[in-house]
Amino acid sequence: MDATQLDRLVAQIGEELLARIPVSGGHAPNAEGLNVADMVCPGCTRRCAQTCTRKTKEIIAAGADRVSTTGKLIKVDPDIAAMIDHTVLKPEATRDEIVKLCAEARQYNFASVCVNPYWVPLAASELKGSKVLVCTVVGFPLGANPTAIKVAEATDAVHHGAQEVDMVINVGALRSGDYDAVKHDVQAVAEAVHRGGAILKVILENALLDDSQKVMACALCKLAGADFVKTSTGFAKSGATAHDIALMRAAVGPEMGVKASGGIRTLADLKTMAAAGASRIGASASVKIMQESAA
Amino acid sequence: MDATQLDRLVAQIGEELLARIPVSGGHAPNAEGLNVADMVCPGCTRRCAQTCTRKTKEIIAAGADRVSTTGKLIKVDPDIAAMIDHTVLKPEATRDEIVKLCAEARQYNFASVCVNPYWVPLAASELKGSKVLVCTVVGFPLGANPTAIKVAEATDAVHHGAQEVDMVINVGALRSGDYDAVKHDVQAVAEAVHRGGAILKVILENALLDDSQKVMACALCKLAGADFVKTSTGFAKSGATAHDIALMRAAVGPEMGVKASGGIRTLADLKTMAAAGASRIGASASVKIMQESAA
Repeated sequence: MDATQLDRLVAQIGEELLARIPVSGGHAPNAEGLNVADMVCPGCTRRCAQTCTRKTKEIIAAGADRVSTTGKLIKVDPDIAAMIDHTVLKPEATRDEIVKLCAEARQYNFASVCVNPYWVPLAASELKGSKVLVCTVVGFPLGANPTAIKVAEATDAVHHGAQEVDMVINVGALRSGDYDAVKHDVQAVAEAVHRGGAILKVILENALLDDSQKVMACALCKLAGADFVKTSTGFAKSGATAHDIALMRAAVGPEMGVKASGGIRTLADLKTMAAAGASRIGASASVKIMQESAA
Repeated sequence: MDATQLDRLVAQIGEELLARIPVSGGHAPNAEGLNVADMVCPGCTRRCAQTCTRKTKEIIAAGADRVSTTGKLIKVDPDIAAMIDHTVLKPEATRDEIVKLCAEARQYNFASVCVNPYWVPLAASELKGSKVLVCTVVGFPLGANPTAIKVAEATDAVHHGAQEVDMVINVGALRSGDYDAVKHDVQAVAEAVHRGGAILKVILENALLDDSQKVMACALCKLAGADFVKTSTGFAKSGATAHDIALMRAAVGPEMGVKASGGIRTLADLKTMAAAGASRIGASASVKIMQESAA
């Protein structure tokens, strides 16, 4: 029997035992709305319901419903995790950091990992078999690339496994009043991305726009067939604000997504953005946010 | 007679008069080593030897050899101007700002304008007929794009008129020790750029590297056939330092170019970099530097 087979057997035995063992304190985990798939072991980097089943079951069997120190269990809120694009876009990120990012995303069941396009094949490989999507960026973070290159970059990324693409709008063209160029830019990338079965978020980089430019950008993105508008790259002088989220939500209506990103470091930040109308959150502090949510 | 024809006639008359009029004070401009082509009128945005000939000639005829207030003449140092890539890479730059950048580059005879790839066709058009080159950036400013996309972006830029390409090295791959990937990335872009008759500078983004990584990057760029190594994108937490320029010059030897960029705002900064071994300077404060050199 090899290690994988052993892991599987342990998981099966764990599931079987869990079904039989009454939890001390008189309540079964399920009665508390707990779900093993929503419980993760911060001490490892894989889903507890799979390789950590034994440890998970032991702790649950002992009566825990949430434990947050290393090697123990925390209960995560799947609705919060499902909002988060777990993000590393700093240029100096190494292969090991991308692998760790993907492991954390599996562990917490984040919506996606968001990585620079060079790392898409690695992320796709690391996340194979999980529900975590691969998100990447295009024309990032300046947006001042020709449309043909943004299309080529998006097409290449989707071909290598990206399921979500966050492109940067052409800020300079927008500020020059070249609205046809801006719309065409988004439309061409949207078509390329959709052809590959992926979705498109468009980063407006609000720090560089006034409110009327933000609203115009939203309108152009909607006309061009984008799926989301997104506040920020994280590389400008400021990031998401509740004001901007509310403005963007009003501009695009309920049927499009609105992603808040840039400077979202706490659970309170996330909740503020969600309350203002954000349907997705981009964050690098995602693990800290999840730990806060379990505290 | 239209405005262009009138301009031409004025220029011709100006040239003719200049040849005939003795300069007050008993010395002809040429006797002072002055050259009309090196004298610019800060009050306008075109070369004085062309449309500002009349004003130029009047002031020279009155005995000036350098005047620096608006609407008058300054004498510029062509050796300093020829070192400078006059740069606007901020994403919010508008069409008008790019046009102004090109006009300033014509006026001061800078080595090139350095613009984001979206603006290459505009810059090429604005600089037609001048000696100022069009420089653009590739994989900028993060460098974390697949090689195929960097090659496509460089090829497209050269096709649209770029004569110099500043690419960003794959910092993450370098820091991961994936040296073959880094070298292949530079080599592929170098080949594409050279095929189009342009040259390649490679931005190391020194702020993210230690000294041994900087030296390794220089070695890889040299092996890969790059023409220059360059310190910084201007988007990281720090830019060019004399220490780094000396290190890079030592690493690549005398036959390659070394470009200092990021945070060079004064003539003293420029001279410090040149003394340390820089052969080219990237700056947005180029006009201010030239005015300082004439002061």
